[in-house]
Amino acid sequence: MDLTAYLNEQQQQIDAALDARLPQPQQRPGRLHEAMRYSVFAGGKRLRPILMIAACQAVGGQPNQVLDAACALEMIHTYSLIHDDLPAMDDDDLRRGRPTSHRVYGEALAILAGDALLSEAFVWLTRPWPGIAAERQLRATQLIASASGAAGMVAGQVADMEAEGQAVDLATVDFIHHHKTGALIRVALQAGALIGGVDETGLKQLSLFGEKAGLAFQIADDLLDVEGQQEQLGKDTGRDAARGKATYPAVLGIAESRARASQLHNQALALLEPFGPAAEPLRAISAYIIERRH
Amino acid sequence: MDLTAYLNEQQQQIDAALDARLPQPQQRPGRLHEAMRYSVFAGGKRLRPILMIAACQAVGGQPNQVLDAACALEMIHTYSLIHDDLPAMDDDDLRRGRPTSHRVYGEALAILAGDALLSEAFVWLTRPWPGIAAERQLRATQLIASASGAAGMVAGQVADMEAEGQAVDLATVDFIHHHKTGALIRVALQAGALIGGVDETGLKQLSLFGEKAGLAFQIADDLLDVEGQQEQLGKDTGRDAARGKATYPAVLGIAESRARASQLHNQALALLEPFGPAAEPLRAISAYIIERRH
Repeated sequence: MDLTAYLNEQQQQIDAALDARLPQPQQRPGRLHEAMRYSVFAGGKRLRPILMIAACQAVGGQPNQVLDAACALEMIHTYSLIHDDLPAMDDDDLRRGRPTSHRVYGEALAILAGDALLSEAFVWLTRPWPGIAAERQLRATQLIASASGAAGMVAGQVADMEAEGQAVDLATVDFIHHHKTGALIRVALQAGALIGGVDETGLKQLSLFGEKAGLAFQIADDLLDVEGQQEQLGKDTGRDAARGKATYPAVLGIAESRARASQLHNQALALLEPFGPAAEPLRAISAYIIERRH
Repeated sequence: MDLTAYLNEQQQQIDAALDARLPQPQQRPGRLHEAMRYSVFAGGKRLRPILMIAACQAVGGQPNQVLDAACALEMIHTYSLIHDDLPAMDDDDLRRGRPTSHRVYGEALAILAGDALLSEAFVWLTRPWPGIAAERQLRATQLIASASGAAGMVAGQVADMEAEGQAVDLATVDFIHHHKTGALIRVALQAGALIGGVDETGLKQLSLFGEKAGLAFQIADDLLDVEGQQEQLGKDTGRDAARGKATYPAVLGIAESRARASQLHNQALALLEPFGPAAEPLRAISAYIIERRH
């Protein structure tokens, strides 16, 4: 398959859907809506919503069925980036080469824009979805809420903060990545499959795929930070080490981290076998992300 | 009816339900769960959940049907207080006589505890509710999400910040209070009624009741800040004026504000007539809150 064309097409579809759903700056209070849009349209790759669409397709669903949920997940991801960048957290001035939200709108509005993005995500997740049973919609939405909160992404962020500058073991790095980045990737697969009409067996397979692939993505990301060229990545490399962040290369070393990513990737691909050709986009996307540095 | 006994009973029920639902500090990451509990159990009056229960009763429902939603609403209210108190916002050191979250746990964890409370609220709002149709549950949850976000509470908070120190007109004060405090009070009534099985006519009546009563509460609160005795209220009075906050007394004067609160209260009570004796708790609570300074 032509992965570039696929990614471009999905990205355009998601960007258009986000634009149609987000409140306009003409509506009061305009600065809030402007700040929400500023971060949502900051050049993200839309990895999580595209994974959700691909999971929906893998079980025979249509991409337009998951647009509300896919946009919601991207909003949750965006809110987490705004809050992570705040002076009290990572204190970042730039993200993807642009000034961070609090640098442009001030800290108070950045906090509130994040809060509003998280709340709006649940407006889209709970409005009527034609053709989807309400029980299934509630289940997908609950998985997304759970992946975002105290048992998911926020737990990972707290554990990451607590580990900063500390000597950490593999179990801690696993906990951090399983929650901080893994939870949203896993739930992208789960929600996409649920909305696409998956049965319980298929849901388990795709959850496990999300688990393995999510961890492999994270190891690849850690490796990129250590080895990557600044121009290739568009952000400073070596920052994790400078901050004493808990990463796989720091705990396992580079060679062992590479071997682990590769093993996880193979396990993930094996889990997709029962889905046949419908899972081709999922296979291509995960290969692309895990191997992007080569 | 014995309002004090009613309020005590509901408050105990809500506190027990919150305690049972919130993650334990023994679970990782413990500091996050501790921070969530610290603010949830900071001595709140549980006004919003009690209004939700009373609305459910007014339409013939049972209090235990709304416990998940009532706890969720209290969590959303609590997260908003944590974020409002942050140094970048109101920079408050005390709330209800205790140090604010960021004074105890630091700014980063306070932001994340707020984020986690908001996310967990939606976990409880989307898990299976026995005996409630999934469509009705989705509708109630959507109203709560909408009341919390860019078209509700967060919009009010932003407008309030923008108005600080500015000369404001009545329309702006109305916008701020309609959104900042009004939205959650209105949705307490709406969600309680929906979960209790209300029909469309009853829902409209109770929404309008929430609208009028919510505004009356806010005017009463503004008046308390101007006129109240510090010991009576347990917080500094006159702070709104010192900060140049947009309030009713500042725009309308004290006498006119009092007349408006009283008029809104009477309009609100008239809207409860069709509900008969079942709405007695709602009547008693609104009278108590609007007239508490006398």
